[in-house]
This record gives sequence, C-alpha cells and structure tokens, in this order.
Amino acid sequence: MAELHKHTYQLASRAHQQEDTLIAVGDQLIGGDHFTLIAGPCAVEHEKQMHQIASMLHLHGVRFLRGGAYKPRTSPYRFQGMGLDGLKLMRDVANTYQMYVVTELMDFSLLDEVYAHADIIQVGARNMKNYHLLKQLGGIDKPVLLKRGMDATIEEWLLAAEYILLGGNEKVILCERGIRTFDTSVRNTFDIAAIPLVKSLSHLPVIADPSQGTGNRNLVTATSLAAVAAGANGLMIEVHNDPEMALSDGPQSLYPEQFNAMMGQLRAQVKLSGKIIPDRQKLRNASQEKLTIS
Amino acid sequence: MAELHKHTYQLASRAHQQEDTLIAVGDQLIGGDHFTLIAGPCAVEHEKQMHQIASMLHLHGVRFLRGGAYKPRTSPYRFQGMGLDGLKLMRDVANTYQMYVVTELMDFSLLDEVYAHADIIQVGARNMKNYHLLKQLGGIDKPVLLKRGMDATIEEWLLAAEYILLGGNEKVILCERGIRTFDTSVRNTFDIAAIPLVKSLSHLPVIADPSQGTGNRNLVTATSLAAVAAGANGLMIEVHNDPEMALSDGPQSLYPEQFNAMMGQLRAQVKLSGKIIPDRQKLRNASQEKLTIS
Amino acid sequence: MAELHKHTYQLASRAHQQEDTLIAVGDQLIGGDHFTLIAGPCAVEHEKQMHQIASMLHLHGVRFLRGGAYKPRTSPYRFQGMGLDGLKLMRDVANTYQMYVVTELMDFSLLDEVYAHADIIQVGARNMKNYHLLKQLGGIDKPVLLKRGMDATIEEWLLAAEYILLGGNEKVILCERGIRTFDTSVRNTFDIAAIPLVKSLSHLPVIADPSQGTGNRNLVTATSLAAVAAGANGLMIEVHNDPEMALSDGPQSLYPEQFNAMMGQLRAQVKLSGKIIPDRQKLRNASQEKLTIS
Amino acid sequence: MAELHKHTYQLASRAHQQEDTLIAVGDQLIGGDHFTLIAGPCAVEHEKQMHQIASMLHLHGVRFLRGGAYKPRTSPYRFQGMGLDGLKLMRDVANTYQMYVVTELMDFSLLDEVYAHADIIQVGARNMKNYHLLKQLGGIDKPVLLKRGMDATIEEWLLAAEYILLGGNEKVILCERGIRTFDTSVRNTFDIAAIPLVKSLSHLPVIADPSQGTGNRNLVTATSLAAVAAGANGLMIEVHNDPEMALSDGPQSLYPEQFNAMMGQLRAQVKLSGKIIPDRQKLRNASQEKLTIS
Repeated sequence: MAELHKHTYQLASRAHQQEDTLIAVGDQLIGGDHFTLIAGPCAVEHEKQMHQIASMLHLHGVRFLRGGAYKPRTSPYRFQGMGLDGLKLMRDVANTYQMYVVTELMDFSLLDEVYAHADIIQVGARNMKNYHLLKQLGGIDKPVLLKRGMDATIEEWLLAAEYILLGGNEKVILCERGIRTFDTSVRNTFDIAAIPLVKSLSHLPVIADPSQGTGNRNLVTATSLAAVAAGANGLMIEVHNDPEMALSDGPQSLYPEQFNAMMGQLRAQVKLSGKIIPDRQKLRNASQEKLTIS
Repeated sequence: MAELHKHTYQLASRAHQQEDTLIAVGDQLIGGDHFTLIAGPCAVEHEKQMHQIASMLHLHGVRFLRGGAYKPRTSPYRFQGMGLDGLKLMRDVANTYQMYVVTELMDFSLLDEVYAHADIIQVGARNMKNYHLLKQLGGIDKPVLLKRGMDATIEEWLLAAEYILLGGNEKVILCERGIRTFDTSVRNTFDIAAIPLVKSLSHLPVIADPSQGTGNRNLVTATSLAAVAAGANGLMIEVHNDPEMALSDGPQSLYPEQFNAMMGQLRAQVKLSGKIIPDRQKLRNASQEKLTIS
Repeated sequence: MAELHKHTYQLASRAHQQEDTLIAVGDQLIGGDHFTLIAGPCAVEHEKQMHQIASMLHLHGVRFLRGGAYKPRTSPYRFQGMGLDGLKLMRDVANTYQMYVVTELMDFSLLDEVYAHADIIQVGARNMKNYHLLKQLGGIDKPVLLKRGMDATIEEWLLAAEYILLGGNEKVILCERGIRTFDTSVRNTFDIAAIPLVKSLSHLPVIADPSQGTGNRNLVTATSLAAVAAGANGLMIEVHNDPEMALSDGPQSLYPEQFNAMMGQLRAQVKLSGKIIPDRQKLRNASQEKLTIS
Repeated sequence: MAELHKHTYQLASRAHQQEDTLIAVGDQLIGGDHFTLIAGPCAVEHEKQMHQIASMLHLHGVRFLRGGAYKPRTSPYRFQGMGLDGLKLMRDVANTYQMYVVTELMDFSLLDEVYAHADIIQVGARNMKNYHLLKQLGGIDKPVLLKRGMDATIEEWLLAAEYILLGGNEKVILCERGIRTFDTSVRNTFDIAAIPLVKSLSHLPVIADPSQGTGNRNLVTATSLAAVAAGANGLMIEVHNDPEMALSDGPQSLYPEQFNAMMGQLRAQVKLSGKIIPDRQKLRNASQEKLTIS
C-alpha cells in the first residue's frame, strides 16, 4: 500500500499544494475564481473562416481562440490540417482581435513551430498517455492544456499531469472532454462528476470541453451550463461560421446564433457559480481603443 | 430502416406528443416547469431515523420522501430491507409531514403492498429490463419512476418506458442515475448529457439521482446543481441522519448539514434554470397549520 | 476488509468446496470433465421449426434443447414469445428426440409452468440482478443456468449464484454470454478470460454462449472453439433451420450447414481440451432403439 | 453513406487483397498458416535476466524475443526502461540465441536507435492513435507490430494500420491485447472475437497478447490456447526468470515453469488449429550447430 502510494501523483495533489494554481497568460488569469472561455473552430481552415469566427468571439469578450493546425484524424483519408500555414494564420487572426492562441501539439518534432505560435499548448486526448511527449513538455515555459484520454481514469490523468509538473512546468490546465462508454447515442460520455472530483484532489485548473464531450451541438449549451454549475474553471467550445461546411467535427460545432444565445445564459451561470468572467462591454471598448490606436 | 423504426419507441417520443407530460401527485405537479425534489434515506431502517430525516426535509419544503423497504443488494449477506413493516413506517412518517412516498417495487408479486403504501412506484436500475414487470406496471394508475439501467442505452431506456406507456399508464418519470464505465474512481458515471438528450427525444419528465450517479456524497451537491443547469425536472437525493451507521449506501448519503447547505444553492440554481420550486416558508406555514388542525 | 469479505460469496467459492460440482440431469452429467452442448433456436416459433432443428441436433448427439417461450425483448413491438404453448411444444419435441429442455424463466409468477416443462431453468442476463427471483430459485430442485449480466462483474455474478445456493439449491450452472463495452462492431464483448477466472474461483460448472457473446453467426465457431480451449464445461449455441426468417436473433443463429461443419471441429477441440463429449453414433443408435421400442 | 465509406480503410481490407499477407523476418514467415511465437520479459532489465529468459525460450524453439527498452509507464515514478543500453543488450542476447528482436518505439525521435536494433518495431496500445508516428512508420522497411488501443474499435484499429500501409509499408502485424471495460477483476478484457472478426475483414496477420490481455499470469495459458483456437496467427507472451522481482508487469509474467508447461499444450493446439509451429528439436539442433561453430 505504501509501495502503491509511492507511485501515484504528488505534485498534482492538494496535499502538495492546498491553494488553487493560478496561471497567467498575458493579461489573463486561469484558475481559482477566474472563468476562462476558449472558443473557435475544430480546425483552422482558411482566412475568412478564422476572421468571421474570431470577430464574433471578440464581440463577446472571448480572449482565447482555439483551432487545430495539425489534426489527429481517425482516418488517413480525412483532412489532416493546414499545418504551419494554419498556425501562422491563427496567430495573425488572434493578434488582430487581442486573443490568445490555444492549439494542439501532436508530436514533439513539431514543438518548435507550435511553441512559436501558441500561447497555450494543447495535448489531445489521444496523446494523454504519450509519456515521451509529456516529459518534453515538462521542460517548456508555456502552459499546457492536458485533455483527459477517452480511456483514462482520474488517477491516470493526474499522473499524466505529474509527468509535466515533475519536469518543472507548473502551468498545467486539465480539460475533461468525455470518456468512451457503451452508449453511442452520444460521441463520448461527458463525465461531469470528474470536475468536482479532480478539483478536490488537485490544485490545478479544470476546464471542460462539452463539444468533444458530447459530439452533438444541440447538447453543448446544456452541458456547458452544467459544467459551470459543477465548478469548472472554464470551457472550451467549438463554434464555426458554417458548421455544415466544416472540414472536421461539424456536428459538434455550434452555429454562430447558438453561440450568441448561449453566451447570455453562460454569463448568468458563471456569476451564480461564483466565478469572474470578463465584462463584455468593457473588453470590447478597451480592445476597440487598441484597434483604433494600432 | 423503416423496419427498424417500426420497432423503436413511439408513445414516448416528442413526435407522438410535443408538449411536456405533466404528472399530478396529490397537490404536486411533476414535469414541465415544475421542479421536483425527492429525498430520503437509501433504506427505511427504523422509526427514529425516518422521523429525523422527514422532519428535516419538511423544514426545507421537500414533499417527496424516498426510502427502500425491499432492497436489491448485490450480496445476500447484506441488509435486505424491512419489507412490509418498512412500507407501513414510511407511509406513516410521510403522512405526518404531508409528504408523498416514493419506493421501489422489486417484483410483481409485491405490487399489492407497494401500491397500497406508495404514491410513486420506483423501478430500479437492475429491473429496467425486466419487461414482465414493466408490462404489469402499464396496467396500474400510479406514476412509475423508471431508473435507467446501468448498462442501458438511451433507446433501451425509452423502450422500457414504452412498455409501460403501451399498457395504458402514461405517468412515467425517467430518472438518470449513472452508467457503468471503466472508471472506478466513482461508483457510476453520471451521464449529464442524457438529460438534455432525453428531454429533446421525449415528452416525459426527466429527473436525476446524483447520489447513485456518483456514489460519493462529496460530489452530490456539484452534480445536483449541474443536473438542474442541464435541464432536469427534478432530483432524487439520498440523505441520512447518521450516514456512518446507514445499513446501505452510507458513503453516498448526505449528512444533514450537507443537505442544509446544498438547499440554498439549489434554490438559486433552480430559479436561474427557469423552474419553479415550492417556497419553503409558505409550505412550512401551510403544513404547520394542518399539523395544528389535525 | 474482514467486513468486506464477510459480504462476498462463500458457498460458490473453491474455498468452500474444492472439487468441481457435478449436476445430474437425467442420464447426463454437467461439470467436471463432462462437456455439455446445449443448442436450439433463440425462440420457439412453431412445430415444424422445432422438429427440423431438434432432429438435426439429435443426429449430432446433442442432448439439450434450448429455446425461449417468453422472450425479454428490448422493444415491446417485437415478438414476445409463444408463452405456454411454446413450452408445451418444446417439451413434446424434446421428448421425441430424447432431449432435455433448457428455457428461460422471466418472472417468478411463471415458475410453475416453466418448472413443469423444463429440465434446466435459465435466468437471463437481464435478470441476473433480479434478487427476488434468485431467492425463489434457491427453493426449487431443478438446475438453474445463470447467465452473466451484461454489466456484471465477476464478483456480482458469483454473488448472484450465492443467492440461489444460499436458498438450498446447489445446482447452479454459470454461463458467460458477453459483456457490454464501447465496441459495437460486435453485439457484446465475449469475455473469454472469465472462463478460467471463474473456474479458479468457483466449483460451479461454467459454460459459454458465443451466440449471444458475439451476436454474429460468423464468429460463433471460432469463439466456441476458443471457449472450449479456455476450459469451458460446455456451450450454448443458437441454431435455426431458417435464420433469415427467425423471429428473434436471426443474425447470431447458425445456419444448419454451419452447425454441421462446426461439430467436427468441436469434437476434436473438446477431446484435446480433456473433456468428454457423448459419442454421436452410440447415442444415435441408442436413441433409435428407444424410438423403435416406444 | 458513400462519403462515409470513402473515409474507411481500404488497403487493409480483404476487398483490396484477398489472400493473407505474409511477412518475412529473416528465415521466418509471419501470417497465413505460420504460427509466430514472441516471448520475453515486459522490460529489459539486465544482462543476466535477458540471458536466462532467452536461453529458456531458445530451448523451446522460440525465435522472437520481446522486451521493452523504453517503457510507457502510467506513473513517472516507476521504472522507465534502460533506453539505448537496453536496446543494445537485447540485440546482443537475441543474436546469441538466433532470435529476432521485437521492441516498442515510443516516439519518432527514437526511431533511429530502435530501427538499428530491432527486427520488428512495436507500436504500443497507448500510441495506436498517435497518427504522426504512424505516418512516419509508413516510410520504413521493417515490420510494424501494431497493438490495438485499449479504447479502439475494430475500425479505428484498421484505420491506424491504414496510416502505415498508405505510407508504403505493407508489413503490418496486428496485435489484440485487451480493451478497457467496466470489469476490473482483470486488467483488460481480452477481446477474443476480435481475432476472427479482424481476420475476416483484413488480410493482415493477427496475433494476440494474452499477458496484457488479462494482466494475470494464471489466465495466460487458457487464453493463449483460446486465441490459437480462435485463429490467431501467433502469440506474444510475457515470461520472466523471476517475476516477483520484475521491474514492470510482474503479475502478468509467466514463471519459467508455467511457460514450460504451457508449451506442450500450445504445440498440440497450434497443430489442431491447422497452423505450423517450428519444430523444437530441429531448431535446437540447428542452432546448437551454429552455436558450436560460432
């Protein structure tokens, strides 16, 4: 038993650090009472798409733009991502709208280019047990958003975080994105209880991805509100200017009007749940000033 | 395909009935905008226990008392329930506090006595595919609370409801209570997305049981709020006057103080989510008058 | 821990009884070195069907005829079984071919008629946690074939057996029939390791149902041979004279020619695995004599 | 639907190639009627260990030596493998006993050194969806042993193979090693039906790993025989000279005497199942001649 405990997570535990970890990204804080909203398309596809989406997000005060430039696709015959061009495009668009870039690193060999363009480096569910990659991410100084593997237990997830923490990188954000179960009426089973459970076990921020977590855009608003009610430190949401034409994950991407409708409910829920969400108007004004100036 | 569809649920579907089903139990309505709170111990154990719990619930305006008189236990060496004496005790206590009785029917041979003492008859997760029992419940005139089987897909669950509806009993309440998955850090995986999904597919009320759904009292408040945020029509909560001494499911039963603390948050969440929850003060006054009179 | 162990299975364990349980059904023995083959259609449908199937089985020396008279169907709109007429028909056909009847009991209220017509009473996967039914079966003197629930752990399965054993009925036959997992390329995931595991934990006979276990007739022969190689005490196989027209589970029923082809391989595998299977020729001669005499 | 099919596996399918793929490794053939036995420890630990194990395997005519030099461990606090020294040691030991080396590649950055020392490059279950790595392996000329991910459907597994085939490397060996399910009485659920199913869908060789597949050495012999009976083209077995002292996966490693006892049963089963296994005596003589000469 002592032997067993010796091998479990330590740095990731509340026993090691009682207070919530706060992670700074530019002028934003992630963790604790701060509510973080990350949104954008599944994949970066082209310039017009990214501008339309980012400008809409900007109006709502969203400060983190997501989008995949390298996509881990189950089939080699599907769109594999724009690669480096996608990274550059996303960086440019994010800069235009004062947003930060969240994007996935699929392999260590791509670290340099992803590092150069991203503010938060995402490790996808399929790579959560890629321990070689995790070790390397322990040596960098940018935050890592670590998605839960679709077959990962809570302990395996926290041990994956431990690999990064042990390397010296304390900026780990956990992201619940659904697990694989027998029920195929949804793409994944969104594990809502994992949110309060992990928050009780660990000091790391825990956000939720209801888009992947359900795979069905019509379930995203309800499960997003639920995640906030359960204590999530943030959300990652897939939204697309034209989901029918999306090159990947169209069925789980919100229509712009769905996103707009959700934002009102989300703000009220975040407030009720005791978290701070950036004020839309203030942000917009501030950023418009900057836009005018620059 | 047409052949396939012929065999799926029809009476349970939104296509068959667009508007939400409303179920009357005494002076209470279940479904639609009405929020229903069912609470009590896992098992009826003795008179003092039931009075302590019911009186606490009464102070919060809870109108539905749960408790098992016949318990489906995995091991034959564990407490199997008080049986008929438990039913009688629960009925008496419920009457004292103007509450309605929700209790499980384990076998058709027990229907007469359960029917005589209960206001809502619960079908447990282990019996959700007991089609013989479901057929018989189609012939009665009391509401049936149909728990989701821990291995049941959404379609199987709605087809189980269809068995009851087809028999002529339209008073079916669905209850999500967690499914069995690979992750054993919780007792079950509470399937939050099932709530909005089933509500989109069916007109029947959908409530949630976060106590069974997580198996861990420390996760019950967070997942209860989440269920409400996701659109649940109600909750079923296990609470015990002395969980350490509970004869079954102690670890998932709230302490009285946890229940008290949860109620404030729950009322705010229900209100935000657009549902109506009975006013505590008014109810208490009303029932005290009755108590004085009787 | 002591507390925990107090509540687990005892009568079902090897600790309680070291030697294999042998169960006599007429002139047949089940368990130990004896290999038991149970075959027949999913459901009893009509006389011609039963005669065609039983006569084919008879030619192969099969002594146990399976067939459902009451069928637990996921949809109320599907064939629910012939009921009592089906039981009578199966009994008649079995008698004609010197076979024993294995059929499912869905509810305690049907026990009298099932008991009157069956030699082995089957508890289906959906009823494995129907503890009320299991308790009642502890009081009868006919063997019970207890299928594993599709969501049941090994311990839950053995505890279900314990309910029957504790009632005084020692004639319990366990049947692995596949569990529910994320992989829907098969109907169930046939848990081959459960066979040697349960045989190490318990003295009860363990047979396998590769028809339910895979849900695909083209996988039945391979998984049947595998089950024997893994140490199973027998097999339950679905075979139909005309699977395309079967009223239930057609896709997992063997064609007669598949069954015939399998039997040669099966006999060789049973012999290699050290079990005794009734000699085809001898049995046929013996039964023909009886047929002539009677 | 046409759209859907366009994105599934093609090169891996029987429709693309009817006859079984045969893969040559030195003087050995893998696939078709040839039975391949791969054995060795979970991890390469030290010289004495490797010599003791390899010499025992050599006596049984085993030609493929497995062993991990880089280990994907759930906890960063556990033994992570000997690295390059382990690769060199395994190569030396394998050469001494005329064996071929099978070892895991954890990350593309390690390809050069793994390629230099291995005859078959293993992709572990945790990397089955590491599409970047799979693409790179499409460009090499050594066989790839592709383990099934513990959360991978059959289609996802064959699509992972497709990534490699599409790159031009036709030497892909599939390895079933158990999936993750709710049942924790075994480490994984060994999916026996996947063997005949994949063999019907694909021309690629399918071997089985009952050690990982069950996680319990006492279940390895029974499930190995079952895998052969189900049609596997080979087995991968963990065996250790001193399992109690093994630095990883001790509980699933056979004791030497268990391995010896299994081999007799295995030879008989392979023969019954119509596969060719190298003759022990002939091989031993041949290799002893070479040993004498060298």
